[in-house]
Amino acid sequence: MKFPFEELRTREIDGIPDLVLTVVQDFETNEVLMVAYTNREGIEKTLETGKAHYFSTTRKREWLKGESSGHIQIVKEIYIDCDGDALLFKVEQVGGACHKGYRSCFYRKIENGKIKIIGKKIFNPENVY
Amino acid sequence: MKFPFEELRTREIDGIPDLVLTVVQDFETNEVLMVAYTNREGIEKTLETGKAHYFSTTRKREWLKGESSGHIQIVKEIYIDCDGDALLFKVEQVGGACHKGYRSCFYRKIENGKIKIIGKKIFNPENVY
Repeated sequence: MKFPFEELRTREIDGIPDLVLTVVQDFETNEVLMVAYTNREGIEKTLETGKAHYFSTTRKREWLKGESSGHIQIVKEIYIDCDGDALLFKVEQVGGACHKGYRSCFYRKIENGKIKIIGKKIFNPENVY
Repeated sequence: MKFPFEELRTREIDGIPDLVLTVVQDFETNEVLMVAYTNREGIEKTLETGKAHYFSTTRKREWLKGESSGHIQIVKEIYIDCDGDALLFKVEQVGGACHKGYRSCFYRKIENGKIKIIGKKIFNPENVY
């Protein structure tokens, strides 16, 4: 699978080299579902399989989104930003993107300096992880 | 201005400590306009002024988005993700977010391994920078 890797500008995140930020958006509603870091290998696997692959900075390893939950992301479109250090995946999200049980990881709004949960829980994390 | 800073989990990006990733989305269309890093000072200035402030990893300094172009971002809503290492600003974008003259920095789509420009130029960068 081809990708214009010469356009990518990777960064070192918490000491982990060669990462590129990825914004993940629902391809139908444009809701921002999550952000993650990926790398060349993750991009190649994403293109090969059609399923989003990232690099977990916590577990320090490649990661098929949904590998344990089944909540995979089918990548419909890929965009690259002007300076090449960020990607945008437009995806079909199976289940929820957030390991806390929400459709989007951005389920918390800041209001008057406080956190307000505005997302609806769509699954129970205890049942899927 | 108040912000639940205890929920933030900052990262070190290319050797610069204490940064938090910010996804910037049009508050009406949900188009993703750009990504940037900010920090505690940037968040405080954003809350004080209502205008998005970031930290430029290139220029290594605080940065009012639009300070030279006039293309400011009026922040309507702020969200924080599940693990506190990313923010989402929903903004009213004056002019274009991208210094290359486009509304969104994600004006390039990957198609068959090649880059295709899908955004429309809305201003001439030579006239505003």
